[in-house]
Amino acid sequence: MPIVRVEMWEGRTHAQKAELARVITEAVVTIAHTTPEATIVVFDDIAKENWASGGILASDEAK
Amino acid sequence: MPIVRVEMWEGRTHAQKAELARVITEAVVTIAHTTPEATIVVFDDIAKENWASGGILASDEAK
Amino acid sequence: MPIVRVEMWEGRTHAQKAELARVITEAVVTIAHTTPEATIVVFDDIAKENWASGGILASDEAK
Amino acid sequence: MPIVRVEMWEGRTHAQKAELARVITEAVVTIAHTTPEATIVVFDDIAKENWASGGILASDEAK
Amino acid sequence: MPIVRVEMWEGRTHAQKAELARVITEAVVTIAHTTPEATIVVFDDIAKENWASGGILASDEAK
Amino acid sequence: MPIVRVEMWEGRTHAQKAELARVITEAVVTIAHTTPEATIVVFDDIAKENWASGGILASDEAK
Repeated sequence: MPIVRVEMWEGRTHAQKAELARVITEAVVTIAHTTPEATIVVFDDIAKENWASGGILASDEAK
Repeated sequence: MPIVRVEMWEGRTHAQKAELARVITEAVVTIAHTTPEATIVVFDDIAKENWASGGILASDEAK
Repeated sequence: MPIVRVEMWEGRTHAQKAELARVITEAVVTIAHTTPEATIVVFDDIAKENWASGGILASDEAK
Repeated sequence: MPIVRVEMWEGRTHAQKAELARVITEAVVTIAHTTPEATIVVFDDIAKENWASGGILASDEAK
Repeated sequence: MPIVRVEMWEGRTHAQKAELARVITEAVVTIAHTTPEATIVVFDDIAKENWASGGILASDEAK
Repeated sequence: MPIVRVEMWEGRTHAQKAELARVITEAVVTIAHTTPEATIVVFDDIAKENWASGGILASDEAK
């Protein structure tokens, strides 16, 4: 039943998500003693315009 | 004040969302004793590439 | 695979949550064409001190 | 370390998000005694078709 | 309709939350052109044991 | 900047969370090419009374 959500800037490839899903699921199964089938991983791609730290949007930071 | 979030794979129609919003709101109002106006339903469409169970992305599962 | 989250003020009984879980799952299964086993409902009890509308915490509203 | 999430209907401009990120970060830093660098603001644009109150999708409300 | 969620370490006082709710609501109303009544602010108190950066739980960091 | 949220039933120990935070952060850093300092892991302990699958609360399932 664990649900893992991964918020990252958009641009990660399909292969990166597939590997993250596999490795995170393994970690959760091993450490938290659950089954792979019960473990859900959801990715959420965040646009740089939708993310700020220090009060500045990431899309404005390089300017 | 209840807020209900529904995460589903993308592809559900406008009509399905409209009916879900109506039926879920009715259930929350009746069972949790609130008002329709105070009840918010938010849908979040998840791409199959952004969802894994068993450590495998849903977009890779049929392969 | 639908995941439904229900945020409500704390104080709902076990029986209310059980009925909400049952009715919401039925609605999702029927309307969105999925299975009960694939449908997850998570409740999140929010303290009135942790909720504001109109800029005023719900715990302060009756004052 | 505060993380602030702002869900709004889609359509807000880049300038509005930039100002919201700046002002909200200032408020969190001042009131909750943290640093700007430790404060993250994430925006989530919600389509009107994905939002209901009173059991009716916002995209259907004007009809 | 904006919903703002504020995740912070537990320990903030009622007065800090009340002021944050007031100031954030004002910012959202002014900048995003909505009404106070339509603006919801939800706080989520996170225990230091439930938060990690750099791979280390915040509750372990001072050790 | 990745934020990873892990929702699990309550009852996991401090040591399990510490190890999960470490291993998940390593995975995200390696696979998604970010830094440990930029990677946040948040745990959310869910009571069995607040979780349902198949329309039945987990706290009722063994009955």
